[in-house]
Amino acid sequence: MNYYDWNQEQAKTYLKRKDMIVLLPVGAIEVHGDHLPLDTDCKLAERIARKVEEQLGEEKCAILPCIPYGQVWSLGDVPGSIHIADKVLSSYLYEIIKSLERSGVKRMAIINSHMGNGAAIKTAMRKAYEDSSNIKVYQFTYPEANSVIQKVCTTKRSHEILFHADEIETSYMLYLAPESVDMKKAICQEIDFPEEYDFTSIKWSEFMEKAVLGDAASASAEKGKKIIDAVVEKIVTVLKGADINGKYTGN
Amino acid sequence: MNYYDWNQEQAKTYLKRKDMIVLLPVGAIEVHGDHLPLDTDCKLAERIARKVEEQLGEEKCAILPCIPYGQVWSLGDVPGSIHIADKVLSSYLYEIIKSLERSGVKRMAIINSHMGNGAAIKTAMRKAYEDSSNIKVYQFTYPEANSVIQKVCTTKRSHEILFHADEIETSYMLYLAPESVDMKKAICQEIDFPEEYDFTSIKWSEFMEKAVLGDAASASAEKGKKIIDAVVEKIVTVLKGADINGKYTGN
Amino acid sequence: MNYYDWNQEQAKTYLKRKDMIVLLPVGAIEVHGDHLPLDTDCKLAERIARKVEEQLGEEKCAILPCIPYGQVWSLGDVPGSIHIADKVLSSYLYEIIKSLERSGVKRMAIINSHMGNGAAIKTAMRKAYEDSSNIKVYQFTYPEANSVIQKVCTTKRSHEILFHADEIETSYMLYLAPESVDMKKAICQEIDFPEEYDFTSIKWSEFMEKAVLGDAASASAEKGKKIIDAVVEKIVTVLKGADINGKYTGN
Amino acid sequence: MNYYDWNQEQAKTYLKRKDMIVLLPVGAIEVHGDHLPLDTDCKLAERIARKVEEQLGEEKCAILPCIPYGQVWSLGDVPGSIHIADKVLSSYLYEIIKSLERSGVKRMAIINSHMGNGAAIKTAMRKAYEDSSNIKVYQFTYPEANSVIQKVCTTKRSHEILFHADEIETSYMLYLAPESVDMKKAICQEIDFPEEYDFTSIKWSEFMEKAVLGDAASASAEKGKKIIDAVVEKIVTVLKGADINGKYTGN
Amino acid sequence: MNYYDWNQEQAKTYLKRKDMIVLLPVGAIEVHGDHLPLDTDCKLAERIARKVEEQLGEEKCAILPCIPYGQVWSLGDVPGSIHIADKVLSSYLYEIIKSLERSGVKRMAIINSHMGNGAAIKTAMRKAYEDSSNIKVYQFTYPEANSVIQKVCTTKRSHEILFHADEIETSYMLYLAPESVDMKKAICQEIDFPEEYDFTSIKWSEFMEKAVLGDAASASAEKGKKIIDAVVEKIVTVLKGADINGKYTGN
Amino acid sequence: MNYYDWNQEQAKTYLKRKDMIVLLPVGAIEVHGDHLPLDTDCKLAERIARKVEEQLGEEKCAILPCIPYGQVWSLGDVPGSIHIADKVLSSYLYEIIKSLERSGVKRMAIINSHMGNGAAIKTAMRKAYEDSSNIKVYQFTYPEANSVIQKVCTTKRSHEILFHADEIETSYMLYLAPESVDMKKAICQEIDFPEEYDFTSIKWSEFMEKAVLGDAASASAEKGKKIIDAVVEKIVTVLKGADINGKYTGN
Repeated sequence: MNYYDWNQEQAKTYLKRKDMIVLLPVGAIEVHGDHLPLDTDCKLAERIARKVEEQLGEEKCAILPCIPYGQVWSLGDVPGSIHIADKVLSSYLYEIIKSLERSGVKRMAIINSHMGNGAAIKTAMRKAYEDSSNIKVYQFTYPEANSVIQKVCTTKRSHEILFHADEIETSYMLYLAPESVDMKKAICQEIDFPEEYDFTSIKWSEFMEKAVLGDAASASAEKGKKIIDAVVEKIVTVLKGADINGKYTGN
Repeated sequence: MNYYDWNQEQAKTYLKRKDMIVLLPVGAIEVHGDHLPLDTDCKLAERIARKVEEQLGEEKCAILPCIPYGQVWSLGDVPGSIHIADKVLSSYLYEIIKSLERSGVKRMAIINSHMGNGAAIKTAMRKAYEDSSNIKVYQFTYPEANSVIQKVCTTKRSHEILFHADEIETSYMLYLAPESVDMKKAICQEIDFPEEYDFTSIKWSEFMEKAVLGDAASASAEKGKKIIDAVVEKIVTVLKGADINGKYTGN
Repeated sequence: MNYYDWNQEQAKTYLKRKDMIVLLPVGAIEVHGDHLPLDTDCKLAERIARKVEEQLGEEKCAILPCIPYGQVWSLGDVPGSIHIADKVLSSYLYEIIKSLERSGVKRMAIINSHMGNGAAIKTAMRKAYEDSSNIKVYQFTYPEANSVIQKVCTTKRSHEILFHADEIETSYMLYLAPESVDMKKAICQEIDFPEEYDFTSIKWSEFMEKAVLGDAASASAEKGKKIIDAVVEKIVTVLKGADINGKYTGN
Repeated sequence: MNYYDWNQEQAKTYLKRKDMIVLLPVGAIEVHGDHLPLDTDCKLAERIARKVEEQLGEEKCAILPCIPYGQVWSLGDVPGSIHIADKVLSSYLYEIIKSLERSGVKRMAIINSHMGNGAAIKTAMRKAYEDSSNIKVYQFTYPEANSVIQKVCTTKRSHEILFHADEIETSYMLYLAPESVDMKKAICQEIDFPEEYDFTSIKWSEFMEKAVLGDAASASAEKGKKIIDAVVEKIVTVLKGADINGKYTGN
Repeated sequence: MNYYDWNQEQAKTYLKRKDMIVLLPVGAIEVHGDHLPLDTDCKLAERIARKVEEQLGEEKCAILPCIPYGQVWSLGDVPGSIHIADKVLSSYLYEIIKSLERSGVKRMAIINSHMGNGAAIKTAMRKAYEDSSNIKVYQFTYPEANSVIQKVCTTKRSHEILFHADEIETSYMLYLAPESVDMKKAICQEIDFPEEYDFTSIKWSEFMEKAVLGDAASASAEKGKKIIDAVVEKIVTVLKGADINGKYTGN
Repeated sequence: MNYYDWNQEQAKTYLKRKDMIVLLPVGAIEVHGDHLPLDTDCKLAERIARKVEEQLGEEKCAILPCIPYGQVWSLGDVPGSIHIADKVLSSYLYEIIKSLERSGVKRMAIINSHMGNGAAIKTAMRKAYEDSSNIKVYQFTYPEANSVIQKVCTTKRSHEILFHADEIETSYMLYLAPESVDMKKAICQEIDFPEEYDFTSIKWSEFMEKAVLGDAASASAEKGKKIIDAVVEKIVTVLKGADINGKYTGN
């Protein structure tokens, strides 16, 4: 269900159900080369949430509006990107968590599509935990993707952990939001990260112009489907596990 | 244009245009009785922005994704509402303003549909002004609506200034987002505000159950059109004025 | 009574009275043209508090020292004005509220004479409310003045809502603190607010030199008396209402 | 001169004078036994400022309204006291300093009568210094008083450094504000500070009931005059020194 | 060299050398089972710094005192652990970075031995970067360790990424600080992380009693040497690279 | 005992002892002329703590790692000094206090050797007190030193209260850490503090080059012993007093 479509009566009724899980997609507005739109991460978060809802059952799932603006430090100086500082983003998230708790929600899951949001999400979750909040908060940032990527993707990654507008992310989009991809503009570029990259603060604009971390042209909806289906399955498994044994339902 | 649909090249090109105005809709997730959805304010902000774009010309207007979560103090304790504290919301807005400034944007307009957001918006705008930011920021919260409301609306208002899910706001929705209104559930209730209401902190739940401030049933798309068209015209006039004489373009 | 004149024993005795109301005048130091002094707002707040005390009865009313420095954003860049940022002023107010609560005070009323202080006062009051503070806080910024102004004042206002060192405020001073008014220097000037004034951040110094918003020369003590007496009556009515039915006495 | 009595023209004229010194009295609202009022510290700060003005010459001195509420940690839990946390008080002071700097003031002196305000004042002064503020800020908290006290006062002090509503402070009041002293209620009590007092956080209410730190009854206006005259002389000497050699005038 | 052993003259001389690198060890006080002391992470950070100094040459390296208290969220509720919140730790680090910058230091490297400190270090580094600080800051948390661990360590890891008081960390200590290890108390325990561990906030005390993440008994100085030598080599390579080409020396 | 040497079991056992006192040395990294090292204050705090432990009995005392970086405002602009702002240092201290409280510690004593740390320590202690923390916190900054200094030291002090790298502090070092003193470089210089020094913000670099406040050459271990032994005795007396009567043990 869409949380935001509810009227007052529905909100009251649905939010007190013990088996209800509220999903909060969190994206970003960030340049992704010329074949993907600025709101790529928003679309990914929203549609993964939709797929999770399909698996969990509509009646147990409420999807919140996506938080559109996230932490975009590395590409924050490139025109088009909008950057929210960690502490501001974590406070914004925290306010949402506390509002849901006040509404009686027992479990929520943050569906995050942008690695840069990770630190802010962790901070908000820990703050809610330390408050002894009566709500259990999960976050998922493509769980299980790495093992499938290693099997499915065929091109060299520019960085061991990072991916961006490349074979991986473009495949996600071809599967989840193909209408927003312009494969004619998908480029292949090998990015040479400075050796010191992992050890100091460097903006990406210092060593790349077009924000594409590899071979976007080799992306395909099939690759995207394989990875994202595994991601969704993992999310659903964890959320169902919490559901069944009830060990961590926040009481 | 939709800011969020742009690719990297388009963002670079469009954002350096001197006559470009970026529009940022700001809404809220808040209970609005049983005839309107929780995201009523988001829909209103987004669609007013769309109408402003129509008037200004698509090539001069870029619409950002709506900020969905706003300051909902008065109804923040009613299940379904999500409340963002003033200082968090103003910081979130400020980060967006500064990102746009870094991108070279000269003028932006916040299209706000929810009165509760007013203080946070003002704080963010003043902070940007004090920074000597090289961007001119406007905010519009239904300008000119009051004079038209007095002519168009027929039912008694429960409060001199406040309106909520009543004849006024329901008319806005019937005009701008009729697919989201369920007029069968539109009620009429007279709310008796405590005499001390304007002078102390009181949550609405202390004196009303259903969050409807008057006679929603008397709303109509025609009424909404008259008010909103005047609102849009005022916004466009102010933004065009700034455009023509260039007096306040932020340089 | 003057709160500040009490000795330790009196403070202990008086503050635990259930029917005691503590009044806190809040003013500002701000330029008001050449016929009014910088502390005009302090004088107004203090003397309105004194009139409220007369009506409520001295034994039920304790007047605190006036907070002399307030939020003076719009005129903050004119020599003489002293500006306190919203968040600092609200924290300062909050500390006072909490101290009174610790002292056992059940009700306090902030007598505010300066519109710029409004946001900070609201923030402090809401924070105390959210703390479940055992004190009820009121704020009054010339309640009921508008309807009387429309009847009593004869000159055109430069702005629909704002007033400053004009017929209105000068009349207040002629009634409440005539010794501080120099009518020989009272000028009449029509201020042409920029059309965009209500929609963006603009300091008053951008469009006026002398900080007078209209026709100060047409002010009179009689006009001031009519407005202020209505203001005081409204304050007293609200505070007595709270007193009698005890509905909101904070327990 | 009284800063607060100025009109706009006077403020503009006087504040740009290079030899102008602005004095800011800072007091507190705090219990002082039964022979002194809650605003004792306000009266002391204001009247010392007045004496400094007499010495420096009225045309070189502008006295601001007293900040009435200060940091009252040690007695903050006794009904009547109003406590402002250090960080709030220092921010409030800082805003005033920055406003004066914007007005063109080159030198200001904080006339402080309450030791508890010391840390907040220091923080505000250092922050202004680090900003490379173009204003020189002084603070004076009874300079030179100790050496005169040793000669003039005859009764045993309960604490080596602290004094409060005792022979010392009561003498100050008898000299500076005799109309506010009720010597019939002046008591003599020896306070036995816990040995660990200087090494841990203890509120005074843990070891005394009436907030009097010694023998108030032995106070006299003569004693007060001797001490305060030395205090004022020291303040004037330091401020004149700065004046004459101009070494630290902030440019 | 030891930064802290310098006198004033030496500090002045050495810190203005362009080829000087200042090393800041950052550890933690945290329980590590019964075979390792609470300050295990401090010893590791200090001694890795010492080994880096050996390789870089004493004259080019200044070692600061270790920051002993770090972010210990996961084990923060176990007696003995001392936890510093992320924002406090990052501010503390930032102050040190800015002080070094004021002293003229061009490059510094944070030698961190505790993964929990990672977010705070990153925040401090980015803040310094955004300030356009004239200092280049590196951080190293066992770089290159993972690939060597896979070759050298023989026992199963309880968690893919985390290690703590297990074969890995105990080997580090046997190599770097053998005098502080009591292998008689080294236990082997397999920790069963909850499936949801990576997706929600869980303290370790919820699923383990003794803070040992695997088989400490299989540790050896030889294993530690192989891993740590690779770590040190990587650090030295990155720092020398920066040294030679001077590309990122912060000017 | 050294807190940091404990293993997990020992931490658990020792920290729940009711008679255990945890000692936290707090120092600074600051220039001290050419005869003393930058970490002079760290060495002093650590070794005074060690002497307190000797007197209290090892089994009742746990010494934490020294906080090496403190508030060094006055000398913060001299190369080598590292300055931590008051609010950062007090937050860092507060986190440690709260961690100890969570561990069950009932009493802790901050052994501070650097006057600049005083305000931050006081703030942290008061914050813990206001939290109704179940831990009693003491701070000691050379208690009783002044009276002994007057008897023992023979040279003129440059400032009534301040001492730094002079006869006093150098004597402390000759007694407590003679291996770190280079008396050949001990100078004697008379510092002429500006008359306004105590009344405004001035860095020491404005009036001295070498950070020595008097005659370091006249220092001796004997002088240091006399003063420090009195300091230690006072600390022990206060801590034992708390121990015996248990009046302020935090319960």
